[in-house]
Amino acid sequence: MNYISALPLNQVRFTRGFLAERVRLVREVVIPYQWEALNDRVAGAEPSGCVHNFQVAAGEKPGKFYGLFWQDSDLAKWIEAAAYRLATHADAALEAELDRLIATLAKAQGADGYLNTYFQLVEPQNRWANLRDCHELYVAGHMIEAGVAHFQATGKRTLLAVVRKLADLIERTFGLGPGQIPGYCGHEEIELALVKLARATGETRYAQLAAYFIDQRGQSPNYLMEESRRRADPLPWHMYFDGLATLQAARPVRELTEPVGHAVRQMYLLAAMADLAHELGDASLVRSCHTLWSSLVSRHLYITGGVGSEPYGEKFTEPFDLPPDRAYSETCAAIGVIFFARRMLDLELRGEFADVMERSLYNNVLSGMSLDGTKFFYVNPLELIPAVAKRRYECHLVKTQRVGWFGCACCPPNVARLFASLADYVASLRPDGIALHLYAESDLRFTVGGAEVKFALRTDYPWTEEVAIEVRPAAPLEFTLQLRIPGWCRGATLAINGQSQPLAPVKGYAVLRRVWQPGDKIFLTLPMPIERVRADPRLSTAAGKVALQRGPVVYCLEEPDNGANLAAVTLPRTASLTARRDATLLGGCVVIEGQGVRVQPSPSLYTTTPPKTEALSLRAIPYGLWANRGEGEMRVWIQES
Amino acid sequence: MNYISALPLNQVRFTRGFLAERVRLVREVVIPYQWEALNDRVAGAEPSGCVHNFQVAAGEKPGKFYGLFWQDSDLAKWIEAAAYRLATHADAALEAELDRLIATLAKAQGADGYLNTYFQLVEPQNRWANLRDCHELYVAGHMIEAGVAHFQATGKRTLLAVVRKLADLIERTFGLGPGQIPGYCGHEEIELALVKLARATGETRYAQLAAYFIDQRGQSPNYLMEESRRRADPLPWHMYFDGLATLQAARPVRELTEPVGHAVRQMYLLAAMADLAHELGDASLVRSCHTLWSSLVSRHLYITGGVGSEPYGEKFTEPFDLPPDRAYSETCAAIGVIFFARRMLDLELRGEFADVMERSLYNNVLSGMSLDGTKFFYVNPLELIPAVAKRRYECHLVKTQRVGWFGCACCPPNVARLFASLADYVASLRPDGIALHLYAESDLRFTVGGAEVKFALRTDYPWTEEVAIEVRPAAPLEFTLQLRIPGWCRGATLAINGQSQPLAPVKGYAVLRRVWQPGDKIFLTLPMPIERVRADPRLSTAAGKVALQRGPVVYCLEEPDNGANLAAVTLPRTASLTARRDATLLGGCVVIEGQGVRVQPSPSLYTTTPPKTEALSLRAIPYGLWANRGEGEMRVWIQES
Repeated sequence: MNYISALPLNQVRFTRGFLAERVRLVREVVIPYQWEALNDRVAGAEPSGCVHNFQVAAGEKPGKFYGLFWQDSDLAKWIEAAAYRLATHADAALEAELDRLIATLAKAQGADGYLNTYFQLVEPQNRWANLRDCHELYVAGHMIEAGVAHFQATGKRTLLAVVRKLADLIERTFGLGPGQIPGYCGHEEIELALVKLARATGETRYAQLAAYFIDQRGQSPNYLMEESRRRADPLPWHMYFDGLATLQAARPVRELTEPVGHAVRQMYLLAAMADLAHELGDASLVRSCHTLWSSLVSRHLYITGGVGSEPYGEKFTEPFDLPPDRAYSETCAAIGVIFFARRMLDLELRGEFADVMERSLYNNVLSGMSLDGTKFFYVNPLELIPAVAKRRYECHLVKTQRVGWFGCACCPPNVARLFASLADYVASLRPDGIALHLYAESDLRFTVGGAEVKFALRTDYPWTEEVAIEVRPAAPLEFTLQLRIPGWCRGATLAINGQSQPLAPVKGYAVLRRVWQPGDKIFLTLPMPIERVRADPRLSTAAGKVALQRGPVVYCLEEPDNGANLAAVTLPRTASLTARRDATLLGGCVVIEGQGVRVQPSPSLYTTTPPKTEALSLRAIPYGLWANRGEGEMRVWIQES
Repeated sequence: MNYISALPLNQVRFTRGFLAERVRLVREVVIPYQWEALNDRVAGAEPSGCVHNFQVAAGEKPGKFYGLFWQDSDLAKWIEAAAYRLATHADAALEAELDRLIATLAKAQGADGYLNTYFQLVEPQNRWANLRDCHELYVAGHMIEAGVAHFQATGKRTLLAVVRKLADLIERTFGLGPGQIPGYCGHEEIELALVKLARATGETRYAQLAAYFIDQRGQSPNYLMEESRRRADPLPWHMYFDGLATLQAARPVRELTEPVGHAVRQMYLLAAMADLAHELGDASLVRSCHTLWSSLVSRHLYITGGVGSEPYGEKFTEPFDLPPDRAYSETCAAIGVIFFARRMLDLELRGEFADVMERSLYNNVLSGMSLDGTKFFYVNPLELIPAVAKRRYECHLVKTQRVGWFGCACCPPNVARLFASLADYVASLRPDGIALHLYAESDLRFTVGGAEVKFALRTDYPWTEEVAIEVRPAAPLEFTLQLRIPGWCRGATLAINGQSQPLAPVKGYAVLRRVWQPGDKIFLTLPMPIERVRADPRLSTAAGKVALQRGPVVYCLEEPDNGANLAAVTLPRTASLTARRDATLLGGCVVIEGQGVRVQPSPSLYTTTPPKTEALSLRAIPYGLWANRGEGEMRVWIQES
């Protein structure tokens, strides 16, 4: 399992509703589609070369390596997603396809366990020679995650054996012992993968290896700096401002107090730190995780749950520097926020972690995939004027519409594996019961003290406020059910079997301990008024503006609803706003409507005469669903008037 | 003379006041300081190498070329500025220094007339081989401007002879004739220089050569494209978005409808087009100039009079894309706006041209130089948070404080030559009299129909509203005096000899035709209320904000007066503002003060509770004087509340 407290994937069945639809889409459309993309069979999309590379490395076909150093990782993430699918939905054809692919991978693997088609086919002499840039251990990490997922889904050890051989090679190769390389990867990922491998195999040496990578990172003498010197290789362009801090490698990780550098790397590092803090009971890592969490959410988090505001190097910058148009907010980085948050829930059950997990999921991550599951965003801005984005250099990585694949295609399979394993994020098993984090219509199954319990959770969340849970133990059973009361929610109410219950959440969770009877009915109401959210004024680009939020869903204005030039659209302080369910729009969602004001163009560029305005029927849609109606303007932060 | 209607420099004497002080500063401090810089004698500043390069090329000392392809142009601009100084203030030592320098230049010049130390010392085999990138004709243009200025100031033909020889070489080399190169320079400048040379020497062939460069630009087959192919040299990084349009060379100049590409180049091209439109009576060029002027001022001009909003390539982008923090607004580009505007006044006397000239001068150009004349800005943002500017790539060319010199030091000597020739911009001689554009305290001397007239202009403009002019013809004389009534001014009043006069400006000028008596006294009042200026809402980054302006002066908030985090400072719609003369602040200026509001930091990054605020004594200072009190935040566009 991915998280120590998570329910096994096959014990959560998403039945219907908003998240269930995404899970189904990933299962039925995205995973097959991406298999086509990885086999270079999608017309019009950038080629992948992933399967091709392994076939060449296995000697199954002639040819040359195609792509980037880390190309293999796209396939690894897809295998992981496909394995999650098998865990919940038997599919003999897919399983056979995976078996064939894994056979190819096994054939491609070197006798010593090495597996990386770029270095096998292109630079065999340079293995482990450029840890700073070449992502070898990162790719290995994704391969290990895939092997663990495949084993857990199918019980087969075919890929697990491959990745164990690879991990064993890494264990022999890296470390502070004689003849070992005292290095670590420029792009974190191997660390969290090794913890998964330790948990799946019961071999703590893999967790120790992860701990080595975490502990050695940024120590003096600095391995990556020495390695750069050895190659006479100056720091590359993306390290222009921050040097080795771009890779969280300028100093030991326990000394970090603000997230820094490449956002995905920082989040993967934090996820691994939280994992190891738990696994090894490392109090200093626990402290570091809390410090960095606190900085992350109070100074570096977009309202959409995204992180990384600097396209140049895909990085964190200064506290509160979160411009909407230059938001990088990479899909993978928001997924990394979810990874980190979920692991923090394993360190401490606190609603704030689940709040952020939910924010990133419903907003930034959803934005990363089109409604039909075949197109993806890598960059997720909070404001877009297409003509400007196409002309300004700092926006040159922004796509104004989602695309079918990317030359660097880290994000699409990352979305796939996240939704395919969404069950991991729904609940935490506790020694005395269970805690529910995400409210998505689902049937859950788990055991408490050896006794099985089923939950039937019924809701139209995030569109409606009501969550109904029928508790079905086989026989009356005492356990603690903790229900998350979201941080955005005020005035939640709870009834059990029609009887109103006092609600005094502890760390963001309502704690219900009782002897549960088969058929007990819980009815939770989470009021979702439309909120006008303001940013701390130190977030300078949002000054004078509000964002609309309802429940966990952040809204945006889009051109199809409100016309172009959205900067001219203002929301009067006194305007009343209403939420309306629209069953047909964007696959069905709640829109926010009200009377806005549009400022008319001026007679000259600058003027001292007050602007003319006209009334405007304003409509906001969920940010996660933007850009599904053609290219146009969008903005989250709306001028208040 | 630089402009066909300009008074000779020695017929305008700036006596005292705000502009006079800058003119004095340039004369007494900046020009000597820059001579030190050009000789690499300023400690702590980036080296120049300019004088050194010529000495090496002349064989006067051993050594290697230092700097960029266009290094010579820094020196040329300084010579031009120094010559302007000699035109108004005799200075035997400076004149002798120039004589020595010019002797060196003459010695460095090749027998065929070629003069460019980079190509002479580094790549003699590659003369004229890379017109796209290497600025050879641009450097020649500055040399020609210097030669004309030196001749006009001193009557000496030493440098004029050098640059004529150079221009003659260019005339032989370039054109559509057999054996000639059908090319033109990637960086415009030679064109306007050749018009000056034609006017100074009376030889229209130089204007014809300028016309060739203008007419050939962007024609098919495209010379620069062919040249790139010949060198197998792909387009460089700064042409990433716009290709040859970066150099205004994608199509013939008469087909341009929006300013495009590198802002300085576009402005120099427009200046030359206006010159030639006048010189050759070319109606199609006149039309193009008006079209591009109109687009420039209605869609591409910062409120500070700056242009170029994209640092990457120092370029124009989309209409209304004028972000304040990423404003490039290069000092040279604003000077280019002034060059273009002044020439448009020669095409048509219309106040709008002078309004923009004044806006660029008092705001963007003034910002380019420190109060003490020894430090300079290349980039002039309208909003600065120093810590953020130092971390974000798109701001990496922003200096948070002015510096002593630049590796690419185009701007400092450009400021010097502009202020040293400020007399050019004050007035236009007319067949029937004179038109006054800029109100700076000065004594003017000119002739109308052979009779000399003197003006004593007394004012504290731009701080005070009153302009007094005593008209002193030798004897009663009929002529037309046109006085500009600025576009920003409403309710101007005029009295002659104490008698109020009706005021009905024609195209922005009060037209006073009468028989002027010695001692006639004109009293012009130009009301300067504090204005809250709003931008067209299509200028999205200024939505909901106002800029403060009084007279021609645009104001900004600075950290020393208002604390940090200026995004949190708002100006209530109802706040009354007062202007106060402060004789000691920033060399003496008018500040704007009033009751503002500061939004307090929130308890969390995003909040639904209305923000706490506190009253703030707000003070705005003239934008042109910012950054003279250490590093800190600044912003022009202020949130209105």
